Amino acid sequence: MPTTADALADLRARLDAAHDLQQAAAVLEWDQETYMPDGAVEARARQLATLHRLHHETLTDDVVQALLDRLTGPQSDLDPHSVDGHLVRVAARDVAQAVKIPGSLVADLAQAVARGKQAWKEARATDTFATFAPALARILELNIRKAEALGYEDQIYDALLDQYEPGMPTQAVTDVFEALRPPLVALVEDLAAAPPVDDALLRQRYPEAKQWDVGMAVLQDIGYDFNRGRQDRSAHPFTTSFSVTDVRITTRFDEHYLPTGLFGTLHEAGHGLYEQGIDASLAGTLLAEGTSLALHESQSRLWENLVGRSRPFWQHYYPKLQAAFPDQLRGVPFASFYRAINRVEPSLIRVEADEVTYNLHIMLRFELEVELVEGRLAVADLPEAWNDRMATYLGLTPPSDADGVLQDVHWALGAVGYFPTYALGNLMSAQLFTQIRRDQPSLDADLAAGRFAPLLTWLQTHVHRPGRTQSALEIMERLTGGGLSAEPWLAYVRSKYEALYAL
Amino acid sequence: MPTTADALADLRARLDAAHDLQQAAAVLEWDQETYMPDGAVEARARQLATLHRLHHETLTDDVVQALLDRLTGPQSDLDPHSVDGHLVRVAARDVAQAVKIPGSLVADLAQAVARGKQAWKEARATDTFATFAPALARILELNIRKAEALGYEDQIYDALLDQYEPGMPTQAVTDVFEALRPPLVALVEDLAAAPPVDDALLRQRYPEAKQWDVGMAVLQDIGYDFNRGRQDRSAHPFTTSFSVTDVRITTRFDEHYLPTGLFGTLHEAGHGLYEQGIDASLAGTLLAEGTSLALHESQSRLWENLVGRSRPFWQHYYPKLQAAFPDQLRGVPFASFYRAINRVEPSLIRVEADEVTYNLHIMLRFELEVELVEGRLAVADLPEAWNDRMATYLGLTPPSDADGVLQDVHWALGAVGYFPTYALGNLMSAQLFTQIRRDQPSLDADLAAGRFAPLLTWLQTHVHRPGRTQSALEIMERLTGGGLSAEPWLAYVRSKYEALYAL
Repeated sequence: MPTTADALADLRARLDAAHDLQQAAAVLEWDQETYMPDGAVEARARQLATLHRLHHETLTDDVVQALLDRLTGPQSDLDPHSVDGHLVRVAARDVAQAVKIPGSLVADLAQAVARGKQAWKEARATDTFATFAPALARILELNIRKAEALGYEDQIYDALLDQYEPGMPTQAVTDVFEALRPPLVALVEDLAAAPPVDDALLRQRYPEAKQWDVGMAVLQDIGYDFNRGRQDRSAHPFTTSFSVTDVRITTRFDEHYLPTGLFGTLHEAGHGLYEQGIDASLAGTLLAEGTSLALHESQSRLWENLVGRSRPFWQHYYPKLQAAFPDQLRGVPFASFYRAINRVEPSLIRVEADEVTYNLHIMLRFELEVELVEGRLAVADLPEAWNDRMATYLGLTPPSDADGVLQDVHWALGAVGYFPTYALGNLMSAQLFTQIRRDQPSLDADLAAGRFAPLLTWLQTHVHRPGRTQSALEIMERLTGGGLSAEPWLAYVRSKYEALYAL
Repeated sequence: MPTTADALADLRARLDAAHDLQQAAAVLEWDQETYMPDGAVEARARQLATLHRLHHETLTDDVVQALLDRLTGPQSDLDPHSVDGHLVRVAARDVAQAVKIPGSLVADLAQAVARGKQAWKEARATDTFATFAPALARILELNIRKAEALGYEDQIYDALLDQYEPGMPTQAVTDVFEALRPPLVALVEDLAAAPPVDDALLRQRYPEAKQWDVGMAVLQDIGYDFNRGRQDRSAHPFTTSFSVTDVRITTRFDEHYLPTGLFGTLHEAGHGLYEQGIDASLAGTLLAEGTSLALHESQSRLWENLVGRSRPFWQHYYPKLQAAFPDQLRGVPFASFYRAINRVEPSLIRVEADEVTYNLHIMLRFELEVELVEGRLAVADLPEAWNDRMATYLGLTPPSDADGVLQDVHWALGAVGYFPTYALGNLMSAQLFTQIRRDQPSLDADLAAGRFAPLLTWLQTHVHRPGRTQSALEIMERLTGGGLSAEPWLAYVRSKYEALYAL
């Protein structure tokens, strides 16, 4: 029997190697989305498959399991509140999840996803759901097998959701969404009936180079650390972390729609600030990551919406934006700009939705996912179910499946249980912001003066530093004294938009 | 006993995984030199150490050795001339080398290099060789231990040279350098006595963005495949390959000295074209790499010097260059430009040396390296030996060790036996070019018309395609009907520079 110290040293060496393999894979994935030449797709896929396989093998090695057993067993004198204590606990969870999924299922899923992506692309291009349906059915079947392998206490969907949002029960999501939907649908209806906001001023030509400069200046101002990160362009913006000292974001631009680049940059910055804010003592371990997708999204949405679409933020930045784009914005009053960037309009496409209607897009997907994995909805009936719900929630009927059920890539990528984290992140962002307002009465004045350090420091101290040593639910409980709630978010959008639309 | 086919499949899976780990490490190294934020140095070093360790472990696994024994043994019915036959032969060599070096020596070398780099930087900044001397002595000691571990038939330096130039004996290098030195020193003296060439026209301000555009256009023209590669900026230009479908080069610019970017780009392009030209059937295996450093350098120097500093090349490009830089080159006659880019002048710094004097810098280093590892020269006496030889070969005395023995990073990086490949590459480039002239009488006319396809096709067919299935010596023997020779290179520089300097 090794000593606790010896067992720990051995375990850490193995976990660190697994972590290095994962981070190396992340570098290759970042490169693929930013700079890799087109011809390299096949070779890169092979390299990534090798790194992911070795990561899995390292983590599920019998010796790792034996060390974890030793360190979680009665002979262990490990302090559960030390970094090592957290590491052993979180690693035990990761390893337990990894060993539960048989290698054959991993391989089947990889193959189903490869086919799924291809089928989804074709189906979307030709607007024929039937082209995607068999691949989707297979992906659902394998996700159900995965859920059974992982196990669950209450609902099968719990096992899938738990992969992205550890510890969050399906029932809790259902409850909060049920409570939110009726008042939100009502608010959206009221806003749709109000005189529309004109956002033509955002649809002028805004040259990309200037948009890049504006975005970089804002990133500097809000505290993004370019000594430990960078920004690049990619077709689909994302954030990735190779270590707490190397956190990268990407953005894209639409020269004929200013918000794409502006708020996309702020969104990814929120994710990036989270990863950069994780305590340095966790660096190099599997604890040095965001603790859940919803908490991650709460950070991106906080900076994108609660800060980035706020009046005080633009009191500071609008004159600078006017100076950057004098031909486009000279003579445009502040109020017109502020209203334009906060225009609400029910629309078909999730990624283009405003902050009020966005959650309805997510609820629709969550409900359909639950019904699909519970066998209450057949894949063949999915387009109709989608369209029915779009009509009920948003008052719209997609003219095609390409603008409806085929719009998102997530299912084709095998991700079932992922969507709700987007809406949970929105709700958490408002729960956190309400608390920040209490703690920092000068928040609006700070934002209006371009002082972001107090806000960032609060987030780092209370949300970022713990990394995976605390779960999202623990962090939210600690900060708000309660569980998940839609109330703060609903109050936020009501107060903001009833004023903005003079309801 | 597994069948040959089963043994081969198992071996290939293991070798391919090792190769993927090596290529992944290359991506991380490329990223470090191009885009990585400064703060990430430590985390990246850890990730790379893990990848290199796993690569070594995969390659030196006992199962790999057993499979190689099976496949090279009497029961094997492998065709030695098939790709698999080559793969087994080359892998057996790589594995034999890897297992001969004990893990403790690898670790000691890594530590000595970490210290060596630091000591070298300090020594160079403060111009105190004594600061570097202990680290260098340690690196030499470990290289001697490495050579003993690897084994050699004739001279101890053979084992070190063989790592970079497989199969090349020290004596062959000594012989060819001995033959080359007297006539080369005489030529350099003659050129130094001739009226000097004025290159002030190259030392005007050439804006970087325009230099980039010119370089990219030349790369396109000569056949660099941007679907399977790219160019970026880095402090020290290099070429790297992640697969035959992803070969990247980097360049740098000096806004006050045009040749830095121009010929640096052509040099790396030569390396890159070699890697892109390797046969697709070898892709993903350890055969899909340049076969030796000297043959690699022959390709970079061929494009940089024999093509890139030739009269016909500039007959095609000079008008374009004048159009790109009208303020700098309008009214500058072709002859003046051509003479300026071919100015010969003995100088202290290897990386700034012209193509005539360059080989003397290498001979000096090679001779000193051999004496050091054979124990005939003490580290303490190295600066004096360096300066003596500089005076004899180039007629110069370094004013400081920073401009002398401390100028190169190679020894600090642990690389002993590497330098001669630079000169061997120069000699091979002329041997190859002589053969190409014979095979393609229209070569000069093609270059003058900007037709590079015939030249590139010749190089691909005869030099690039085989990858590591043939050694550099085999390729040179096949193409030139003889071994290494300095004659073609000496004839090339004599004929070119006697005309240019009107000797």
